[in-house]
Amino acid sequence: MTLLADLKPQHFLWSVEDRVATIRLMRPERKNPLTFDSYAELRDTFRALPYATDVDVVVLAPNGGNFCSGGDVHEIIGPLVAMEMPELLAFTRMTGDLVKAIIACGKPVIAAVDGVCAGAGAILAMAADLRLATPQATCAFLFTRVGLAGADMGACAILPRIIGQGRAAELLYTGRAMKADEGHAWGFWNALHDSDALEAAAAEMARRIAAGPNFAHMMTKTQLNHEWSMGLEQAIEAEAQAQAICMKTQDFARAYYAFAAKQKPVFEGN
Amino acid sequence: MTLLADLKPQHFLWSVEDRVATIRLMRPERKNPLTFDSYAELRDTFRALPYATDVDVVVLAPNGGNFCSGGDVHEIIGPLVAMEMPELLAFTRMTGDLVKAIIACGKPVIAAVDGVCAGAGAILAMAADLRLATPQATCAFLFTRVGLAGADMGACAILPRIIGQGRAAELLYTGRAMKADEGHAWGFWNALHDSDALEAAAAEMARRIAAGPNFAHMMTKTQLNHEWSMGLEQAIEAEAQAQAICMKTQDFARAYYAFAAKQKPVFEGN
Amino acid sequence: MTLLADLKPQHFLWSVEDRVATIRLMRPERKNPLTFDSYAELRDTFRALPYATDVDVVVLAPNGGNFCSGGDVHEIIGPLVAMEMPELLAFTRMTGDLVKAIIACGKPVIAAVDGVCAGAGAILAMAADLRLATPQATCAFLFTRVGLAGADMGACAILPRIIGQGRAAELLYTGRAMKADEGHAWGFWNALHDSDALEAAAAEMARRIAAGPNFAHMMTKTQLNHEWSMGLEQAIEAEAQAQAICMKTQDFARAYYAFAAKQKPVFEGN
Repeated sequence: MTLLADLKPQHFLWSVEDRVATIRLMRPERKNPLTFDSYAELRDTFRALPYATDVDVVVLAPNGGNFCSGGDVHEIIGPLVAMEMPELLAFTRMTGDLVKAIIACGKPVIAAVDGVCAGAGAILAMAADLRLATPQATCAFLFTRVGLAGADMGACAILPRIIGQGRAAELLYTGRAMKADEGHAWGFWNALHDSDALEAAAAEMARRIAAGPNFAHMMTKTQLNHEWSMGLEQAIEAEAQAQAICMKTQDFARAYYAFAAKQKPVFEGN
Repeated sequence: MTLLADLKPQHFLWSVEDRVATIRLMRPERKNPLTFDSYAELRDTFRALPYATDVDVVVLAPNGGNFCSGGDVHEIIGPLVAMEMPELLAFTRMTGDLVKAIIACGKPVIAAVDGVCAGAGAILAMAADLRLATPQATCAFLFTRVGLAGADMGACAILPRIIGQGRAAELLYTGRAMKADEGHAWGFWNALHDSDALEAAAAEMARRIAAGPNFAHMMTKTQLNHEWSMGLEQAIEAEAQAQAICMKTQDFARAYYAFAAKQKPVFEGN
Repeated sequence: MTLLADLKPQHFLWSVEDRVATIRLMRPERKNPLTFDSYAELRDTFRALPYATDVDVVVLAPNGGNFCSGGDVHEIIGPLVAMEMPELLAFTRMTGDLVKAIIACGKPVIAAVDGVCAGAGAILAMAADLRLATPQATCAFLFTRVGLAGADMGACAILPRIIGQGRAAELLYTGRAMKADEGHAWGFWNALHDSDALEAAAAEMARRIAAGPNFAHMMTKTQLNHEWSMGLEQAIEAEAQAQAICMKTQDFARAYYAFAAKQKPVFEGN
């Protein structure tokens, strides 16, 4: 049994309340940049989450009015410029491993984005399952601005599936900011909320999902990601198996008995 | 030669007029739930359609102002709760086989949706090629509400390709209803029509498509589904082959001669 | 070193200015149809582009107020009707090879579309990375109108990834024109501009992209297309490798040093 409520990360803020974990990046005076240390610690935390029995949903929240400014120029980009290939690949694989860990963590992840959401910060939002933002949120996949490819941490694969291939190409080739209303119209943001309502909306969405059948949610997340490149026939068979597993859970029986008794089911995640 | 016009299904309504088959689920007083029997009979009918020489397009139509309320709670969910794994997997495979049969039936399928369109009913709409709805249509992938995963009958693979990964995730994790105007803006519904105009619009769309080159339509449907997980190079080669086949049909020659004679081509599906 | 500025194609118009190549199809009095010869010459030109050291971006531009009317009825469809299968497959493979060559050319391609954009012309727009249009642009994948499948040159694979599976199915089964505002709302067109502003907007977009890190742009294009059917884990690893390569370019260092000096980086594409 892994309990994460008392986790004391050094490089990001962490809290768990009502089975919802909240993560905030640090140093709001610099708009919460990522560093080598916070990348690694986030990766390790998301890798621990599949085993956590006290967390059902994760919220990635802003800090000081901004979400994340991406890889810090002085702490990350400077050192990278001086590295040899083995270290560079170790770094890009570590960042990719963070996205893989988010995808494989087994719990729905909600990004609640205000203000700056740039570079690797935009990737974090993209890697979440659900995304809320404020009208002030500016999301920029700005890798091209620092001389790099849009191919960063899975963006060329994932972003087109969220907003369409043509819009993704524009954002990745130009590095321009996606405005909040564009992102909403394009399906990147699930909803927009004013800054003073954003966190309450994310908390409500997290609470609502966490009150659901969390074992089944884990299966939904697994299948959304594992069917990514399956043929249609294979995906349908995979879901037949996944859903048959869920039909053997007590939550399925709880829903049926509650319905038969004209009550609302109380799910327990098993 | 398989003729389906005189099919007499016991568990759904069936009619064929002008080479367009119309299916309506039964028991409008319960909003047309699916049952073990109707699942199986629908699967068998769609499996017969590739060989049918008297049907070119299928319309899934509402009955009594609703489309389909999904698997019946008492007739399906109750028995499932009591089943062992082999029976459960047999059931989830049967439902998946219905989607596979719709996809492989070789004829364009148009869903015309009014009122309730929930659970497996939402899946039927999703599995169609084209979707029309009324402003009152509420489409809910509500599996999570009954303790199950959103991974049902291919939803985690298919829904993201229609409306985008982020919107699909929201609908599957929360089970909330997609409102008609959302579904239209997101590309789930191809168009909205008032209830009293829905069926005429579906019939007109069906008639228009059925008047087209039906052998070529079959190829379009085949390729839309078989290229699902191909690489780009493989998909382009597959289309070179598929289109070369179509160029050997009489319908292609008919179109050319009609055009040269400044007439409208009359296609015969061969 | 391959220089393409002085290319003298016989079957389309070609110019290179400021490292941006512009292509216009010929015979505006017939709305710029494609012919066997122009297909082949376009294919060969896009196949030469990966090696070109004097072109960074390609613009496909209109001619005389129209983009392209597709395969010419008399010069292409007539002869096809009389061909045997080996010749037919040679033709459909040649057209598919043009799309493959556009995808593999290593340079961002911008389609600037006004007026008629039909059949293979719509495919050319679809195969571009970015698409601008005018309110008068009518884009029709009208293969069904000439008795053929929507499966032409990759349309069943590519169009759904740009505008969603349901909208793509409608366009491919009916052959109807996508109106400009639909195409914009659906993500097919990145932006709309009036006819007298279209080419300036395309030139500005081309100039802006060409001023970026062109080696990295090549990697972005490569990954957007090569990750098409990869699993998520494989795509993320592929991007770790692609981005590590880009981190060894001088353009990455240039961006860092410019940023440290509070200057704007000048990229050189190496």
